[in-house]
Amino acid sequence: MSAALVIAVDAMGGDSGPAVTIAGAAVTLLRRPDTFFQFFGNETAIRAALEKHPSLAARSKVIHTEVSIAMDAKPSQALRQGRRTSSMWLALQAVKDDEAHVAVSAGNTGALMAMSKFCLKTMPGIERPAIAAIWPTVTSECIVLDVGANVGATSRQLSDFALMGAAMARSLFGQDRPRVGLLNIGEEEIKGLDQVKAANSWLRDSGLAIDHRGFIEGDQIGHGAADVIVTEGFSGNIALKTAEGTARQIAAYLRAAMNSSLLSKIGAFLAQGGFTHLREKMDPRRLNGGVFLGLNGIVIKSHGGTDATGFASALDLGYDMARNGLIKQIADDLEKVAHVARARDD
Amino acid sequence: MSAALVIAVDAMGGDSGPAVTIAGAAVTLLRRPDTFFQFFGNETAIRAALEKHPSLAARSKVIHTEVSIAMDAKPSQALRQGRRTSSMWLALQAVKDDEAHVAVSAGNTGALMAMSKFCLKTMPGIERPAIAAIWPTVTSECIVLDVGANVGATSRQLSDFALMGAAMARSLFGQDRPRVGLLNIGEEEIKGLDQVKAANSWLRDSGLAIDHRGFIEGDQIGHGAADVIVTEGFSGNIALKTAEGTARQIAAYLRAAMNSSLLSKIGAFLAQGGFTHLREKMDPRRLNGGVFLGLNGIVIKSHGGTDATGFASALDLGYDMARNGLIKQIADDLEKVAHVARARDD
Repeated sequence: MSAALVIAVDAMGGDSGPAVTIAGAAVTLLRRPDTFFQFFGNETAIRAALEKHPSLAARSKVIHTEVSIAMDAKPSQALRQGRRTSSMWLALQAVKDDEAHVAVSAGNTGALMAMSKFCLKTMPGIERPAIAAIWPTVTSECIVLDVGANVGATSRQLSDFALMGAAMARSLFGQDRPRVGLLNIGEEEIKGLDQVKAANSWLRDSGLAIDHRGFIEGDQIGHGAADVIVTEGFSGNIALKTAEGTARQIAAYLRAAMNSSLLSKIGAFLAQGGFTHLREKMDPRRLNGGVFLGLNGIVIKSHGGTDATGFASALDLGYDMARNGLIKQIADDLEKVAHVARARDD
Repeated sequence: MSAALVIAVDAMGGDSGPAVTIAGAAVTLLRRPDTFFQFFGNETAIRAALEKHPSLAARSKVIHTEVSIAMDAKPSQALRQGRRTSSMWLALQAVKDDEAHVAVSAGNTGALMAMSKFCLKTMPGIERPAIAAIWPTVTSECIVLDVGANVGATSRQLSDFALMGAAMARSLFGQDRPRVGLLNIGEEEIKGLDQVKAANSWLRDSGLAIDHRGFIEGDQIGHGAADVIVTEGFSGNIALKTAEGTARQIAAYLRAAMNSSLLSKIGAFLAQGGFTHLREKMDPRRLNGGVFLGLNGIVIKSHGGTDATGFASALDLGYDMARNGLIKQIADDLEKVAHVARARDD
């Protein structure tokens, strides 16, 4: 068996702190038993939560700190107050110091990104990190990035996102040549933003191990038209949130429809096996976890309001990304395209 | 009873031409019997379609032309080939000449927008027209604009969109002070694009008869957080298409779930009343029709691939917008804010 995979956990992050982060780790340990956890945060609170999970306690270490980052802290404020001392920072520092393979936090996104850039630094050859989300499709899943690390992106940055997203698809889905598309408002080459068009030309001739699919419209994301969908952070975040909102809206319609008559209620009762299946498929906790790409280390952002099941998904994702050598995948691809790098500068 | 409301119909627009446009008009005439139609296009084809609808034939006029705009024509090409002669242009010309109250076309969007700008001209005080879509929410409907007339928008243009969307909400929903929000990637004032922030400040102090709600995230659109959601055309189009794609995706999940076991199938059969209700609620034909705002005349764009039911929705929408004085609403609001116009220039 291979050596333990070490996850550095910001135990204080998220709306519920150790109550959720420790319980989530216990779930992941059952599924990935060779994980070792480092929990950063208030030792008393963490130890109290660990009492219920003796086998997790046996495969974890607690590193005490009194400082934690508020969920509503501004990035600059978080950096000023929590650098070197906060549970969030210490988890990142463990990755930087090669003591952990990946850091996972349910803390606030802006603070986590600011600290990650400061602590781990951006990879050589990458201008800007991005946040990648895993998006359910009718056939399986795809990766969408950037979903909000930055607003706007040059063609160079968009092609970086494509390269990093493709490396993530190789790590996560085991695909040799992931299908990559650029989110745009029309399939015709004449439409859309100049930087999207320039990135499209570059990707077509990049020599990367990708199956370049050109432009993808919003309705094609969930249809599974590509494995990696690339866009800048403003539109990516809006697409992601809009899809989440639409899913909740239709769930509300469905509940109302099934309560609209006695016969519908009886039918829904009989079909509850099917509805359970549907609920599981649409459960946002199943694909919880945004991956920060482009840093010298893997960082996973969990939703702040999730529960143990959702946090475990983020931990699983971190485990898989680290185990499958995400950073090396990205570095290899960057090396491959280094000779054409100048051509894609804006 | 008031005088007839005249709709100029590009009878050749869309994937199916008169077969759909005439059948759609027959549906609208049943619901809005004081409509009079002008059909522009190939007279033989139109007359053939009208044969099935004698009461529609009695309330319509056919204006013959051989020229129609191809669904894949580029805007510049359409203008060159179809100016003054095409069925699309003639429908717009009828609005310009005050012979019709509104023009409706299922032809290609780019060509229709280019011709509309050329024929009807942009309203004084408006820099750029926008396309507004009606978006279903859990409670009712809202208006989202721009969904793709242009890529990018200055703060001045965004505030124009807000003004026009609010006027449309007054015409369509009869609201005195529609709730207006700006689509953004975070609710905090620090986040997002500069032009969105500038538009936010301007709208807060505009004196318009709106209930300004500040920033709205993507998941709040379908939740009904505002009556008018304002964004530039790239992100607006992506949000709209993503929502459509997500709805189709969940419908596919639901079908699979209901076919997953015999009991689910029986349940779904019993609940078919509820499912019919759901299907009607999610039917894209129900809210078919994008409104071109900011021109000296009302133009409605129907989906090209819709059927008679869908085209009738677009005609109904055109009728309602014209009957409720949309253009006057916008003009009045523009006059109201003329004294602060300079303050919102970028």
